[in-house]
Amino acid sequence: MSILLLAASLQAASPAAPAPAPAPAPASAAPAAGDALPEDWVTIPDDELLVFTLRGGGTVTVRLAAPYAPVHVANIRRLAAARWWDQGASVYRVQDNYVAQWGDATEKKPLPAGLVTPPPAEYDQPATGAGVAARLARRDPYAEGAGYSRDGWPLAGSGARQWVPHCYAMVGVARDLAPDTGSGAELYTVIGHAPRALDRNIAIVGRVVDGIERLSVLPRGTGELGFYKTEGERLPIVSARLASELPAAERPHFQYRRTDNARFRAWVASRENRAGPFFTVPAGGAEICAALPPVRRAP
Amino acid sequence: MSILLLAASLQAASPAAPAPAPAPAPASAAPAAGDALPEDWVTIPDDELLVFTLRGGGTVTVRLAAPYAPVHVANIRRLAAARWWDQGASVYRVQDNYVAQWGDATEKKPLPAGLVTPPPAEYDQPATGAGVAARLARRDPYAEGAGYSRDGWPLAGSGARQWVPHCYAMVGVARDLAPDTGSGAELYTVIGHAPRALDRNIAIVGRVVDGIERLSVLPRGTGELGFYKTEGERLPIVSARLASELPAAERPHFQYRRTDNARFRAWVASRENRAGPFFTVPAGGAEICAALPPVRRAP
Repeated sequence: MSILLLAASLQAASPAAPAPAPAPAPASAAPAAGDALPEDWVTIPDDELLVFTLRGGGTVTVRLAAPYAPVHVANIRRLAAARWWDQGASVYRVQDNYVAQWGDATEKKPLPAGLVTPPPAEYDQPATGAGVAARLARRDPYAEGAGYSRDGWPLAGSGARQWVPHCYAMVGVARDLAPDTGSGAELYTVIGHAPRALDRNIAIVGRVVDGIERLSVLPRGTGELGFYKTEGERLPIVSARLASELPAAERPHFQYRRTDNARFRAWVASRENRAGPFFTVPAGGAEICAALPPVRRAP
Repeated sequence: MSILLLAASLQAASPAAPAPAPAPAPASAAPAAGDALPEDWVTIPDDELLVFTLRGGGTVTVRLAAPYAPVHVANIRRLAAARWWDQGASVYRVQDNYVAQWGDATEKKPLPAGLVTPPPAEYDQPATGAGVAARLARRDPYAEGAGYSRDGWPLAGSGARQWVPHCYAMVGVARDLAPDTGSGAELYTVIGHAPRALDRNIAIVGRVVDGIERLSVLPRGTGELGFYKTEGERLPIVSARLASELPAAERPHFQYRRTDNARFRAWVASRENRAGPFFTVPAGGAEICAALPPVRRAP
């Protein structure tokens, strides 16, 4: 038994990680039907990337999902422009197999002017919106169907409504009991199995495209629900900036993969029926959070 | 907005954690239809619990799934009896949103006598086996259906076959390319979104019922596939013992919830349609890995 061979086999089975690029195939290998061509990668605009810098210098980069929660995302951009997260904000809750949550643990910091509070409940939207470019073969347990938007987001949908599902690394807006919708100041990301029951009950505003492991490895809070019991346990946030606010030389660049072509549909089919020397039984289906659309750092 | 209220709301939405007991309802509150009665909790036999002690004294306790992979589990019991993991074994791979893996990183340690190598491919079994006591309402993306065994395990099934799905905290046997099946010496547990494409392609031998957060917070390996690059990064395993091998005073005790009654079926329904002041849209369904059967420390 070779662990390294095992590992290489499992790699093919792993869900696409949010950030790392797939290793390019050797020039001698024939491309697979689901491989991306260079023109399949679309650069994410600078004002769609929100970069949180944590104490110690590590960063967590979020692609904002403006088309799916426009008022919440507008609030988030205003909070960043006002430097709201730059003083006193922290990661203050980490619950195993659930979420890491950040913002103002004291709940006392005033919000900047210009925010819409409360925002409307942007938990889903008409399915006539951004458009679904590819679909999964099987029914979704939480929706009539699931697939991929033209702008590189996972989508679930039932009837005439669609929404971005609560997958690993998705970013949502913490809120109180309904009808509260949250402001956008308190955010969380999923660090465990997708808590899809939250779909349509909370606003999804983005996806961590780089640095999720800076949150997923944090000590779990020993307070109720994973809250840190003491201020000293909290991980301070140093700053939050849209990439467009950073000096050009410091801007990170990420790309999503186009979903509206046969190569992407072949990629989806390859996730639904894994092949190769490791797998003996292809599933015939996949769940959307185990087949997230690829995002990579721009080469 | 109250973060604490928010948190309490999200708790109701969180997948059942592997180990913690649900908080008992106040005496004044009427029990919900899905609440367990004291007689619903079944104590797991001592020889079904395998306790790994890590450097520093933390433990990770695995409930072994002997009915679902009998030869692999027999190997694991022999490995523990031979103290195979007590010298030189470690957690040597941690890949974000995927697995933590442990055993002998050198691949050179001889296996004890008496192991069946290779074991048969115990990746699924006839559905006439342990019996399904409760079912989820909707189709599973990886199987025709999913539900709960009489002995407290999640199950997926298609046609005449059933298997334990690759959910968070499930323990599998690392292996090389098919037809290799692994020996049981190299194990992993899921620390991210369920990689269900592995279902029916690898042997599931247990579930971490306590201490998963001791693995899920470990630094992600910076080598390929999350392997630690240096020996110093590995987390040594001090010992692995069946609870039945421990002095009575040191044995941990865990219980699974009975699945073969109306109270459990009501609990399943409550996972499929979340209620309460937080949720505005119940899903009408749930995915098996987001509705794992409850396990708790014996009170």
